[in-house]
Amino acid sequence: MEKLTIIKVGGALVEDAVALSDLLDRFVVLSGAKVLVHGGGRRATDVADRMGLHTQMIEGRRVTDLAMLEVVTMVYGGGVNKNIVAKLQERGVNALGLTGADLNYMQATRRAVKAVDYGYVGDISSVNVELVSLLLERGVLPVLAPLSHDGKGCMLNVNADTIAAEAAVALSSMFDVELIYCFEKPGVLRNSDDDNSLIPKMQKADFEKLRAEGAIHAGMIPKLENCFSAIERGVSRVRICNVAGIEGDGTLLI
Amino acid sequence: MEKLTIIKVGGALVEDAVALSDLLDRFVVLSGAKVLVHGGGRRATDVADRMGLHTQMIEGRRVTDLAMLEVVTMVYGGGVNKNIVAKLQERGVNALGLTGADLNYMQATRRAVKAVDYGYVGDISSVNVELVSLLLERGVLPVLAPLSHDGKGCMLNVNADTIAAEAAVALSSMFDVELIYCFEKPGVLRNSDDDNSLIPKMQKADFEKLRAEGAIHAGMIPKLENCFSAIERGVSRVRICNVAGIEGDGTLLI
Repeated sequence: MEKLTIIKVGGALVEDAVALSDLLDRFVVLSGAKVLVHGGGRRATDVADRMGLHTQMIEGRRVTDLAMLEVVTMVYGGGVNKNIVAKLQERGVNALGLTGADLNYMQATRRAVKAVDYGYVGDISSVNVELVSLLLERGVLPVLAPLSHDGKGCMLNVNADTIAAEAAVALSSMFDVELIYCFEKPGVLRNSDDDNSLIPKMQKADFEKLRAEGAIHAGMIPKLENCFSAIERGVSRVRICNVAGIEGDGTLLI
Repeated sequence: MEKLTIIKVGGALVEDAVALSDLLDRFVVLSGAKVLVHGGGRRATDVADRMGLHTQMIEGRRVTDLAMLEVVTMVYGGGVNKNIVAKLQERGVNALGLTGADLNYMQATRRAVKAVDYGYVGDISSVNVELVSLLLERGVLPVLAPLSHDGKGCMLNVNADTIAAEAAVALSSMFDVELIYCFEKPGVLRNSDDDNSLIPKMQKADFEKLRAEGAIHAGMIPKLENCFSAIERGVSRVRICNVAGIEGDGTLLI
């Protein structure tokens, strides 16, 4: 099977023009087919502020009422996404920006209200990558925004880590997929304050052990659970690294 | 050749939820392949206002400095575009939102500064519809935002009428194209204050005659020039109509 690299890039990296440029330079030269998934949280907060809208975050997740849904649809689907697409085209790469609504490649259902009403936030319900695969085979690089739709005419705000994992799982039937989560740290650290404590390789049993020992940082737990879930569902390899590690460093999860 | 209908819908229609819904209901049932091109001017002005940015229009065109470029990229490429895409998916139509940067289907050059510096406004320099045609053959309905890119990493604000005409011309080599400009009036009127003075059919000679007589309204002149230019470059038919006229009424230009 052809190699496919899916990279997920967080909001902080995407909003730093120098870091984004460095990332894209390193990414476009990787061999094989490629997909980029971006976050974009901080810019949405900035635009919301300027529009007089208050941003409420609960456990790191944005509460998305109708006005905030309009903001994230504009910022993620338009501002952040098209900036990346134009910069990939500049590098001679035929990029295509997509939300889950485009080509109906990923549909979601609005999250049920439990203790918290997150508003227009979606959980992925179906993935359909037939046309995305066709485009990948033609050299297109899809750029996925953290947005989906409910099939009833409404966009939904979706977590970018989840978009990346679900796309990776769905494309694993047609490609040999490596999923890379690229963020500020060099990888999973034994001590989150010490960049030299990188764990180069990790299996699920190692993760369970480190979690039991309390060595893994709270915010890292859902990310790693997401990663191991992707591996269990057919993704060949998952890596967590920073921009400098894209070519092969960081923490390899297998 | 297969029939292809390209409809261009102005900003005022797109921002009226009831009119947009009516338009989409009528549009999706037309036979053959379809493309929708949207404007979105008023919403951009509203968002700019709320963000504390002043909108300057000269001869009906938006002056687009860097801050305004970010606004139109968000609003046209994200907000307006994805709202239409989601509403088409709701109708079971596999829509795909595109700016000129996506799939590099339309590239532009920044307009040279003459009497007025319009800023980040582009004129189309190349159109490449190979992948768009492939997707049309697979039942995809492209939704085109009035944005392009310069190939050097920068988005550009482009007139939606021009996007529609250039896409129609490029697709005419592969499809039998009808281009429809849908706006508030029932078509080209002999007297712009009288909706009953519709001109049902018009050739270029008729247009020249009416223009010489001063019967055609100033704003209509560039639109009609655009239309006849499209016909001269291979588009089979151009129509100007309102939402109720989509199925075949309005002014037919041949």
